[in-house]
Amino acid sequence: MKKHIVLLPGDGIGKEVMESAKAVLNTIAEEFNHSFSFESHDIGGAAIDRHGNPLPPETTAACKKADAVLLGAVGGPKWDANPSHLRPERGLLGIRKELGLFANLRPIKGFEKLLHSSPLKEEVVKGSDLLIVRELTGGLYFGTPSERRDNGQVVVDTLFYTRSEIERIVDKAFQCAQQRRGHLTSVDKANVLESSKLWREVVEKKKQQYPDVTVEHVLVDAAAMKLITNPSQFDVIVTENMFGDILSDEASVLTGSLGMLPSASLREDGFGLYEPVHGSAPDIAGKGVANPVAMILSAAMMLRHSFQLTVEADVIEDTVESILNAGFHTADLKNAGKKVGTEEMTSLIIGSI
Amino acid sequence: MKKHIVLLPGDGIGKEVMESAKAVLNTIAEEFNHSFSFESHDIGGAAIDRHGNPLPPETTAACKKADAVLLGAVGGPKWDANPSHLRPERGLLGIRKELGLFANLRPIKGFEKLLHSSPLKEEVVKGSDLLIVRELTGGLYFGTPSERRDNGQVVVDTLFYTRSEIERIVDKAFQCAQQRRGHLTSVDKANVLESSKLWREVVEKKKQQYPDVTVEHVLVDAAAMKLITNPSQFDVIVTENMFGDILSDEASVLTGSLGMLPSASLREDGFGLYEPVHGSAPDIAGKGVANPVAMILSAAMMLRHSFQLTVEADVIEDTVESILNAGFHTADLKNAGKKVGTEEMTSLIIGSI
Ligand SMILES: CC(C)[C@H](C(=O)O)[C@@H](O)C(=O)O
Ligand SMILES: CC(C)[C@H](C(=O)O)[C@@H](O)C(=O)O
Repeated sequence: MKKHIVLLPGDGIGKEVMESAKAVLNTIAEEFNHSFSFESHDIGGAAIDRHGNPLPPETTAACKKADAVLLGAVGGPKWDANPSHLRPERGLLGIRKELGLFANLRPIKGFEKLLHSSPLKEEVVKGSDLLIVRELTGGLYFGTPSERRDNGQVVVDTLFYTRSEIERIVDKAFQCAQQRRGHLTSVDKANVLESSKLWREVVEKKKQQYPDVTVEHVLVDAAAMKLITNPSQFDVIVTENMFGDILSDEASVLTGSLGMLPSASLREDGFGLYEPVHGSAPDIAGKGVANPVAMILSAAMMLRHSFQLTVEADVIEDTVESILNAGFHTADLKNAGKKVGTEEMTSLIIGSI
Repeated sequence: MKKHIVLLPGDGIGKEVMESAKAVLNTIAEEFNHSFSFESHDIGGAAIDRHGNPLPPETTAACKKADAVLLGAVGGPKWDANPSHLRPERGLLGIRKELGLFANLRPIKGFEKLLHSSPLKEEVVKGSDLLIVRELTGGLYFGTPSERRDNGQVVVDTLFYTRSEIERIVDKAFQCAQQRRGHLTSVDKANVLESSKLWREVVEKKKQQYPDVTVEHVLVDAAAMKLITNPSQFDVIVTENMFGDILSDEASVLTGSLGMLPSASLREDGFGLYEPVHGSAPDIAGKGVANPVAMILSAAMMLRHSFQLTVEADVIEDTVESILNAGFHTADLKNAGKKVGTEEMTSLIIGSI
């Protein structure tokens, strides 16, 4: 298989962990006789510094021509005081919108070996394996008007959806549930928001097309509780952009594996952008200690979701698990075992593939 | 002191726990020579059934004339299929707005005796003692337009604030922080939302008036993580209505004491409505097993915040703690010790006052 991949390392540890993912992909290409070509572009703070724009047009154009995109991380204190249009996050929001990546998939699964570092009691978190499907290009983060009025005395943001935007993310979530344990939890605030009422209606209607999936509606406040008290009750969760932002970050700390969590942002045709859940971690950037696993697992998600290379994705995921089980870990994890840096962790994984 | 209190028992266990709170207040009145008079009114589902309106005008009028209001809980499956304007929650949203209760105070503190039932590891949750100050009458839950358009093909909700609405809740939160440990965490999504940018600006400006309070800004997604990984880092959290709804419910399960948590919803002049954080629990309603402690502690908050009866509030709170420490608990708590019903728990508390 021949694929062209655009790499957007971004800021902070994004650059380091991207090198790791690329090295792992090169190994997979050799072992399985594929040809992966790469092309790097700037985004976020790096792009502001070099092009005065968090999302330069060349970056967008290159992504549009690629078969898939890998992104490291964006942001850092250096750009925190910038005006809105010159903030690193604008690059991320912009590329999602430009590429039509409406479905954000965030799988959260504990690694046996790391459960002890979960803030939850082991008996609470044990067996948790959930997937949050977050709508990514609509809702409160993209609706207009989003502006000040009356000389800054009044401010407004808008939660806006078309019915078809809701339908396509709900379809995606049902399909994910079919491939997993067949249970879908739709999260909304239908007792207050009009948008949530429409959301719930769409889910109720769609479920007739997926008779093999059981459906449940949970209010967002209750969902925020249940994720903590009983995370293993969930299979697939589908929700609005901002609700999904909050709940997926909440869920990401449950299993004690934040440095291990990948994500996919997909278009209807399977094209996608893949990025770790963790941020740019400016405090440890450049020190060679960043955990590359989330980025490497994001590359595995790319193989699975955009290229249908299931075996190859499985190999990466199994290898990562076996390296962890052998006791190797980066500095972010407080394991017994052997502490290694970014490069050594990467070599260990490559060596085992 | 002579005070007139409106009781809004509402639905489900609301009625039972309200009886407990009233009995405790009567005991306090006797012991401390106050005169508390009570008047009950319908709200929520009960009001829909009897008056065809979740917030009958007589209820609003009575609350407006009272010195304070106690509310039990609203809602239940019976009314779940009702149209928006005939849902129990409308009663709650309506009374908050009618009475101008813009500041929702939700203290979350673990009881030593109950920490073992927290989903978090004891070393993570230990020492947590935080107060969430949620803006309650603006933001995403009240902004207009909130409607369907184009024949239901499009839907919109609105997050709307005036600068003065933000200022008054931020002031309230600073004042709370002054009376506690002097640290304020303002939660927003300033990297995306215009309303959050104004929110952050207001906090930055206001902090000059409160030099004794240290201030920190945290993004809502990060806050959802930190509440779990390190809840004891927080003192006072202030945030928008919907962010506050999600984060306060998330926080309410951290200490294993959901059945014990009170809340206050306040107006600028100190007038307030007090209610337990738990819901109407229709599954156990009428069985005499509901935990009355959250409602009783809500009454204590009323004494403290609306009537400045600090000693009396302390007495109730200390008594509750001592009864728990003596091993008594209702069925919602999986303690060793002696399991008691609603009435017996109430009598124990009254007996100890
Ligand atoms: C950086 C920010 C705009 C972004 C978001 O909220 O979408 C991030 O938090 C994420 O979850 O990917
Ligand atoms: C019932 C509902 C409208 C309400 C809210 O979200 O405000 C409740 O969840 C609460 O937190 O008091």
